Amino acid sequence: MDTSLASSRFSRRFQLATPIALAPMAYAAGGALSAAVARAGGLALVGGGYGELDWLQREFPIALEQGPRERIGVGFITWRLDQDASALDWVLQHKPRAVMLSFGDPRPYVQRIRASGAALICQVQRVDHLPLALEAGAEVVVAQGAEAGGHSVSPLEGRGLMSLVPEMADWLAAHSPDTVLLAAGGVADGRALAALRLLGAEGVLLGTRLWATRESLAAAAAKQHALGLDGDATTRSIVFDALAARKWPDAFEFTRASQNPLVHEWEGRHDALRAAPAALAHYQDGVRSNDFQRAFVTVGEAVGLVRDLPGAEELIARITGEAKRLLGEPG
Amino acid sequence: MDTSLASSRFSRRFQLATPIALAPMAYAAGGALSAAVARAGGLALVGGGYGELDWLQREFPIALEQGPRERIGVGFITWRLDQDASALDWVLQHKPRAVMLSFGDPRPYVQRIRASGAALICQVQRVDHLPLALEAGAEVVVAQGAEAGGHSVSPLEGRGLMSLVPEMADWLAAHSPDTVLLAAGGVADGRALAALRLLGAEGVLLGTRLWATRESLAAAAAKQHALGLDGDATTRSIVFDALAARKWPDAFEFTRASQNPLVHEWEGRHDALRAAPAALAHYQDGVRSNDFQRAFVTVGEAVGLVRDLPGAEELIARITGEAKRLLGEPG
Repeated sequence: MDTSLASSRFSRRFQLATPIALAPMAYAAGGALSAAVARAGGLALVGGGYGELDWLQREFPIALEQGPRERIGVGFITWRLDQDASALDWVLQHKPRAVMLSFGDPRPYVQRIRASGAALICQVQRVDHLPLALEAGAEVVVAQGAEAGGHSVSPLEGRGLMSLVPEMADWLAAHSPDTVLLAAGGVADGRALAALRLLGAEGVLLGTRLWATRESLAAAAAKQHALGLDGDATTRSIVFDALAARKWPDAFEFTRASQNPLVHEWEGRHDALRAAPAALAHYQDGVRSNDFQRAFVTVGEAVGLVRDLPGAEELIARITGEAKRLLGEPG
Repeated sequence: MDTSLASSRFSRRFQLATPIALAPMAYAAGGALSAAVARAGGLALVGGGYGELDWLQREFPIALEQGPRERIGVGFITWRLDQDASALDWVLQHKPRAVMLSFGDPRPYVQRIRASGAALICQVQRVDHLPLALEAGAEVVVAQGAEAGGHSVSPLEGRGLMSLVPEMADWLAAHSPDTVLLAAGGVADGRALAALRLLGAEGVLLGTRLWATRESLAAAAAKQHALGLDGDATTRSIVFDALAARKWPDAFEFTRASQNPLVHEWEGRHDALRAAPAALAHYQDGVRSNDFQRAFVTVGEAVGLVRDLPGAEELIARITGEAKRLLGEPG
């Protein structure tokens, strides 16, 4: 088995210089970051996120203008499309290379995505999620580990990548060998990229590590705060959504983000928090004043390996080079 | 950086043929399994577990008789030693190569362990656990990922190995470069061993995979049941201890084991379960009749990669060979 980066079926299928994809992080993976990732030879997925049409109409054209369009795609939160799919319909007219769907049933959107010529990428969290992704016709499956930042399944259901990736690789080899497996969660450098190739992934989806770059649209104060965090600093909680006045479907209501005293104060009482205007105002005041004893940053366990805020092209070259050295592969 | 198995500082320090340690699983890692692991060139840690003197007096001599004693050690649950350390004191007279302590403050036991000539191994779950392990003088630190079976920290505090291992490797390189880092959790084959070498671990501690061997003292019906499980089949819960009528300290009261309807029925109501004799009798009846709709098997997420019940020597040769092939290392 050839586990080099060059032999990655993800790289070959999408004609990438390196098997790295930008996670479509809502409000962070904008046009400039996406373009930089695509220029570096990765697959960029603009953060279609909650499906805001105006946000995507601003950011997606920037990605197309500044980056090679053959490596520009987009990602959406599936259950939000069930409420309003206008951003998906708009972006499909602009021929994204791929559309990634996460957190919900992808099947209602498959026909229009494939008709546009885009590849379908589905993110899943457990082995028992694979059959639905394959039924939907996913060309690429992203295994999201419990290490990942942002929304996912509950802490009781989440899987770590160490066994999830080889188990999914074996399952796909037996049931759908053409499907490409990527891994997401906890990946911040070339060590994890190389390790995940050996575990059976064809590449990685980078969230937190690309969130902490110059081009990311995350707030400057949030990026600075993240530089001081170790990987123990995050937790998975429903409180984050309650603070942000968001309500996700029960299956995906847990978010991994940086913990702080406010999150601990409301742990287990998120419904009460939603009905407590003074507490919510106290949180919002913390956000406005960049007080991270109240505000939080939506990052995964990989934040403990983030020690700088480089440009995305430099970062991808660094990660790729380190992985190649570890795999004994010519640069 | 040389990431071969042969260059592992764990192998060199303990003169091992392969950087694999047997996790000291209570009631499963007995004398025969330990001896087999030691004969295969790994470091065997007999499952001193809850500190039952009579169990250890039976199993430890078997390990010494059947395996090379220079690779036979023992492991204990630290908080149990606080109640009764007679098994530790007994075994130290028999010169174990190493003593592993997990789940509690190791410092009260360090002096007698080192005086016996044994190496001290401390298991930790988070980066912020490292300073105490180093203060205790651990020669080896085991990073236990949230993937692991058995007891650990809560699901909100647990870390996946994908970022925990490189983060700990960096921390140790900066603060205590002689300390040897191992990884535990989710490891079932040579892919994970090779991947963890690239992530910065010097070797692995195998639990679930060695639990499912011919020599393991786990019940035959439990091993057979485990063969049919995928990695999604486990969960982390306090209910397991309530069913088994055990009470661990709050910091480590969560166990990862195979879920079933009975565990779900009592989720969130473990205190009520402890006070419900009929429910406990119903569980115990399930254990006696090998009914895994009530009984559970204490395994980690790696169970999804367990497809046979080989002898431990054959298994370790298989894992080592696969890891070497992936690392491009001569067999």
